[in-house]
Amino acid sequence: MRITVDKAAKLLLNRDCFLILCHMSPDGDTIGSASALCRALRTLGKKVNMTCSDNIPKQYGYLVEDLAEMEFTPEYIVTTDVASTSLLGDRLNIYKDDIFLAIDHHPSNTMFAQHTLLCPEAAATAEIIHELIEELDVDVDKPIADAIYTGISTDTGCFRYANTTVQTHLVAAEMIGYGADNAYINRLMFETKSMNRIKLEQMALNTIEYYFENHCAVLSITRDMLHISGADETELDGVSSIPRQIEGVEVGVTLREKNDGVIKVSLRTAGHMDASALCKQFGGGGHKRAAGCLFECSIEEAKKQLVEAIGQAFSQQ
Amino acid sequence: MRITVDKAAKLLLNRDCFLILCHMSPDGDTIGSASALCRALRTLGKKVNMTCSDNIPKQYGYLVEDLAEMEFTPEYIVTTDVASTSLLGDRLNIYKDDIFLAIDHHPSNTMFAQHTLLCPEAAATAEIIHELIEELDVDVDKPIADAIYTGISTDTGCFRYANTTVQTHLVAAEMIGYGADNAYINRLMFETKSMNRIKLEQMALNTIEYYFENHCAVLSITRDMLHISGADETELDGVSSIPRQIEGVEVGVTLREKNDGVIKVSLRTAGHMDASALCKQFGGGGHKRAAGCLFECSIEEAKKQLVEAIGQAFSQQ
Repeated sequence: MRITVDKAAKLLLNRDCFLILCHMSPDGDTIGSASALCRALRTLGKKVNMTCSDNIPKQYGYLVEDLAEMEFTPEYIVTTDVASTSLLGDRLNIYKDDIFLAIDHHPSNTMFAQHTLLCPEAAATAEIIHELIEELDVDVDKPIADAIYTGISTDTGCFRYANTTVQTHLVAAEMIGYGADNAYINRLMFETKSMNRIKLEQMALNTIEYYFENHCAVLSITRDMLHISGADETELDGVSSIPRQIEGVEVGVTLREKNDGVIKVSLRTAGHMDASALCKQFGGGGHKRAAGCLFECSIEEAKKQLVEAIGQAFSQQ
Repeated sequence: MRITVDKAAKLLLNRDCFLILCHMSPDGDTIGSASALCRALRTLGKKVNMTCSDNIPKQYGYLVEDLAEMEFTPEYIVTTDVASTSLLGDRLNIYKDDIFLAIDHHPSNTMFAQHTLLCPEAAATAEIIHELIEELDVDVDKPIADAIYTGISTDTGCFRYANTTVQTHLVAAEMIGYGADNAYINRLMFETKSMNRIKLEQMALNTIEYYFENHCAVLSITRDMLHISGADETELDGVSSIPRQIEGVEVGVTLREKNDGVIKVSLRTAGHMDASALCKQFGGGGHKRAAGCLFECSIEEAKKQLVEAIGQAFSQQ
């Protein structure tokens, strides 16, 4: 059942012994939201822990390292930023039919919980947690402010993306007022790249090819490149977005050789080009501006077929 | 003489025929501030133009392209975001002894104007312009909101840098409320790279060398690389900041071969290393975290001498 913020606050105030679950491959919003809520409920004298199927990535360490695990048997399971139970991951799958309260901002939330506090207009789940903590009447201290700020900043690409609203900036202002170390957090989140990521970027940039008077750019990431650089999946996002950042490029293509020999294509378009229509020709799909498809062949062959299709689309404009 | 916002508003309200000057190599703050002030004063029925010694870079076109030049003889010269008259550039140098009002946030402002509205605590001059427009009692429309938002967003690296305050976010929230197209502006400012910049990045990444168990990274930009890539000066900043973004790097060095054969070194440090002390050994200087120096030799020789000095500094830690 979908509930309001004040109802969610009442449910939490009248209960004890909570376990808060993050989604797998955790990001700043799921961890920041869980951390802020865990701290707020502990301030109220409640027993609360938070957990995740995967290890908390090193850069988010400051959000959790002072939260020593409490000894108790959890009675109420809460999720933060989890859109569906399939995202809980293997280790937390045991809780999937037993979620008491889900707090989320994904419109695609599958309503798996007994109670769902869903605000799709929020840029981040941390924005909802902020409202909830206000309703719980807990004073925001620096660790809570850091946690909420982290959720908001990471889910909006540091206030760059279109999901950033007036409310997003108002909450950020309030959190900085409560001592959130915004400059430190953003340096950690947005200005630090691993050596492996730098190595992968270097190799990937060397593969860029331009077609059709530079209106199309294609970048390739092979298994060898991943292997040699040692970069992991979480470091791929920034690299695959490079082609669509190039000025004048209307079709930005990233080809990625998956572990199982399949080629994963991600296609971004500007102007009149329809990414979804292009990918449909190869059994894929998506939106007008962003779509994808899979090939079962060599990266060279996939590139050849795609570039041909893109050329036809250009000639039909 | 230093004046307050309400005094500045009175000075503007009681006068007419303004020319607003931007600083040379104009950025989003000087152009955004000038554009917002020009629009606000025109709304009040005044004759106002804005100008810059250099051409307005293409990506800032939306801030000025609808501001048709008005026919009149300027009587009062106003500067936005100009810290010293040496920054006016050749074409506007004629006005240097004749500035009526300077609006600026640089603590280093040389107080060259008859009246100076200086707020060093503001993240951007556009933040001051926002206050001034409030005082002028002009309603903020979408073009003014876009202009103020652009100044704030660009001078804070999209709210990433340490200069971002509670007030910065509050003004951003207000501007989005007045219709500022924040997602469009940020995509233009922060997610678009020229083909030349991509080419330069590719070549520069290939030069990265690591020393002292990867605690030191050195990147080199030669004249050839600039020539081949076609990248211009304004595109160098992002590239020279790469070494200090690498995780675990305590000393990030960028060597740049200048047109006149001189090697310009920029050095950034983390941890205990003192950038200023290192650069002093070679006749340079700066701050503890960021410093620079010049060499008159080959890039290879400069690198050798620097790395040696850095090695000594590491061994003395």
